[in-house]
Amino acid sequence: MAFGVVIMNHAELDQAQKMLWKLIRLGSLAQVRNGLRKMHPADVAGLFPHLRATEQLTLIDLLFEEQLAARTLKALPENLLKELLEKIEDQKLAMICTRLSPDDAVDFLGYLPEERKERILGLIEAKPKQELETLLLYPEDTAGGIMTTDFVALPEYLTVRETMEFLRQRKRGEDVFYVYVVDARGHLVGVLPLRNLVFWEPEQRLREVMIPNVVRVQTTMQQEEVAHVVAQYDLLAVPVVDEENKLVGVITVDDVIDVIEEEATEDMYHLANLDTDEHVFTPVLRSVRLRCPWLLVNLATAILAALTVSLFEETISQYVALAVMMPIVAGMGGNAGTQSLTVVVRGLALGELDFSQGAKALFKEIRVGLLNGIVNGVVMGVIAYVWYHNLWLAMIMFFAMIANLVIAGLFGALVPLGLRWAKLDPALGSSIFVTTATDVGGFLVFLGLATMLLRYLK
Amino acid sequence: MAFGVVIMNHAELDQAQKMLWKLIRLGSLAQVRNGLRKMHPADVAGLFPHLRATEQLTLIDLLFEEQLAARTLKALPENLLKELLEKIEDQKLAMICTRLSPDDAVDFLGYLPEERKERILGLIEAKPKQELETLLLYPEDTAGGIMTTDFVALPEYLTVRETMEFLRQRKRGEDVFYVYVVDARGHLVGVLPLRNLVFWEPEQRLREVMIPNVVRVQTTMQQEEVAHVVAQYDLLAVPVVDEENKLVGVITVDDVIDVIEEEATEDMYHLANLDTDEHVFTPVLRSVRLRCPWLLVNLATAILAALTVSLFEETISQYVALAVMMPIVAGMGGNAGTQSLTVVVRGLALGELDFSQGAKALFKEIRVGLLNGIVNGVVMGVIAYVWYHNLWLAMIMFFAMIANLVIAGLFGALVPLGLRWAKLDPALGSSIFVTTATDVGGFLVFLGLATMLLRYLK
Repeated sequence: MAFGVVIMNHAELDQAQKMLWKLIRLGSLAQVRNGLRKMHPADVAGLFPHLRATEQLTLIDLLFEEQLAARTLKALPENLLKELLEKIEDQKLAMICTRLSPDDAVDFLGYLPEERKERILGLIEAKPKQELETLLLYPEDTAGGIMTTDFVALPEYLTVRETMEFLRQRKRGEDVFYVYVVDARGHLVGVLPLRNLVFWEPEQRLREVMIPNVVRVQTTMQQEEVAHVVAQYDLLAVPVVDEENKLVGVITVDDVIDVIEEEATEDMYHLANLDTDEHVFTPVLRSVRLRCPWLLVNLATAILAALTVSLFEETISQYVALAVMMPIVAGMGGNAGTQSLTVVVRGLALGELDFSQGAKALFKEIRVGLLNGIVNGVVMGVIAYVWYHNLWLAMIMFFAMIANLVIAGLFGALVPLGLRWAKLDPALGSSIFVTTATDVGGFLVFLGLATMLLRYLK
Repeated sequence: MAFGVVIMNHAELDQAQKMLWKLIRLGSLAQVRNGLRKMHPADVAGLFPHLRATEQLTLIDLLFEEQLAARTLKALPENLLKELLEKIEDQKLAMICTRLSPDDAVDFLGYLPEERKERILGLIEAKPKQELETLLLYPEDTAGGIMTTDFVALPEYLTVRETMEFLRQRKRGEDVFYVYVVDARGHLVGVLPLRNLVFWEPEQRLREVMIPNVVRVQTTMQQEEVAHVVAQYDLLAVPVVDEENKLVGVITVDDVIDVIEEEATEDMYHLANLDTDEHVFTPVLRSVRLRCPWLLVNLATAILAALTVSLFEETISQYVALAVMMPIVAGMGGNAGTQSLTVVVRGLALGELDFSQGAKALFKEIRVGLLNGIVNGVVMGVIAYVWYHNLWLAMIMFFAMIANLVIAGLFGALVPLGLRWAKLDPALGSSIFVTTATDVGGFLVFLGLATMLLRYLK
């Protein structure tokens, strides 16, 4: 909010971005510079995908000179940022990292190859370097990995007057909304929301005015759990402590929003058998490399379904209508299975379902499958009768539909619960398992029934 | 954060919740009351799913008496809250609504049937009632529908001293982090982050110390766009203005987190052909009612696929291996289509892709489909040859796989882009369209080729 003109509506923003885009293309750098000073870095970031590679580098140079590079790059989508970081000189990147808040700098460094990361760290001054090196030790997806060390912690014996004096002198850093209070050994003992400053008397000590019980998380907590805590208690920031309750960092709500979006993308991608490294504009060859292994696994399981069908070649050759009905069996099982799977995976992700209630969820999905199987079985039975004028075929379709949707409910719930039980991601690869189960199970019941009743079908 | 003991780790929280649960079951209400005062309302909320219906009502009564009902109910998941609201007496619910912040009260009222909503509004005092009635006029999923009217706006000519005086006297309301500054006609002209209070002199006027350009949204903006704005600019709150730039409300970041989770759920659910009203523990019959229409639509499109196959009954009856290969064609097309679909839907949702880049995304998905088709086609061709010792079948599988995955990429991108172009939800029903396209297209190519080359197959 401390930046120049913030544009308030789409039309204005569009116009300003287009203007800047034209100025860059024309090479009117003085005017571009002027424009950059007036726009919010997040809006300048929006321009990058529309620029040619050389223009992107020119813009980064200008931003760097205007000391806006850190704030602008930070607002880029991850995939684009990774590409651009490859092209920025080491010296500049080191400068940019020192201007970022430590948590963002660590993210930037995390995108680089190991060797280059070391080189850049070597270019950073001792103090920030040490801070970054400590942060880099935490796994990326834990509280330690997403926290910043840029926070205000003050000893409990300080007075309100001294605190205000301290804050006035402090300049750099992210927006401060809370001051954390620590005891002599650095243990977190309380918090002061700065908005409450107006209520305090200058000579009161922090320990008298602080809120003594603070929601906190440990460095080792998984990032999605941190997001749960922040969402659950409606926090703007959550302090991070080590195993001895010493305050070591803070996670702010804007980073939590990123985590929530990242986790949602991950679940969606895993349900669709996609790698989380992929984005809509990932280069074609890389997309192929990322998707192909999944497709090959799917091919292997599709062959399982084909093998099931091959058991019944003789039956099908005698009554080809069965081959016509096969896509219906597979399609319905797949769809119903995906429904159950998605409800359970999302329930687990949102914390609406924990493992202890697994049996309840499983039983529910089976019953839903049974009832939906009856409804769709009746409809399909009637259609099959009208189509082939064969009551036995209609009955086989009716029972096959029920069996198929019960299998879909059973495996749609069982697979993600089983993965969670094994401490794996409940979404990962689950749709392949479920589809295999509905295909194989569905064909077995459908073609098995048909084989038993073959003499009535012909 | 203003509540009693906040429990900091899972084990402690678990223990405290279990203790409270036991006390409720035993009916030791005095001790329950004592426990409630010590726990965070969000943690008490976590107890509800584990209680019997009568216990839930007892707990609500106790919470009501302790003036904790509003804050606790607010933290419940939507589906459970809806159920409980049905059981709370009108008078109590009206009281609870007045204790909620207006945006939450409007959410609660929105869950009620029209007639009961009117009755409850009738029980609320004139002033808050009018506020709620105004908020209820905005569509639920717009900025107007999620904003609160509980914010601080002060005229620009006020001094810092007067502002601090005002804040000291103000009691009720959500956490205040920003004071908004308005001109004589109520137009939003600036913002004061309260943390900056320490930097100001008492006699300065607000217009001198405020940040003049504020990111703002209009009442009509869609909630997912609001979430984009807040995430993009890393805001803690965003002011909402009407078409004349008059400040009418504020949206805080905790509500934005809810929007982001809601939108992610919606996309996932729509990709899986689920209604957003469903949750993991929605009662069985209601789940059946919500899923069945989708399954019937899917049945209709599966019949289209079956009709396609029926065009080739003669071919299949002469060479049954084709029926065996069918699940592979359908399965691979479905999986590849879902991959393309998910990448495009998520790209649109995260704003990484806008409609103007649609052709680029479409073209990319087609090329990915082509290359993946070649890889999987070779693998499948070899397998088909080993299986049936027929080079023609292997070649048909090779070409069918390529055609099928190109169709998957084409429709996987085209369907969500088309839906967005028609101003519909890009995820809604899209997987049914895509699967139909890959099934029908895949079978046409596969069985069509087989029919043309039938004499070499036999």
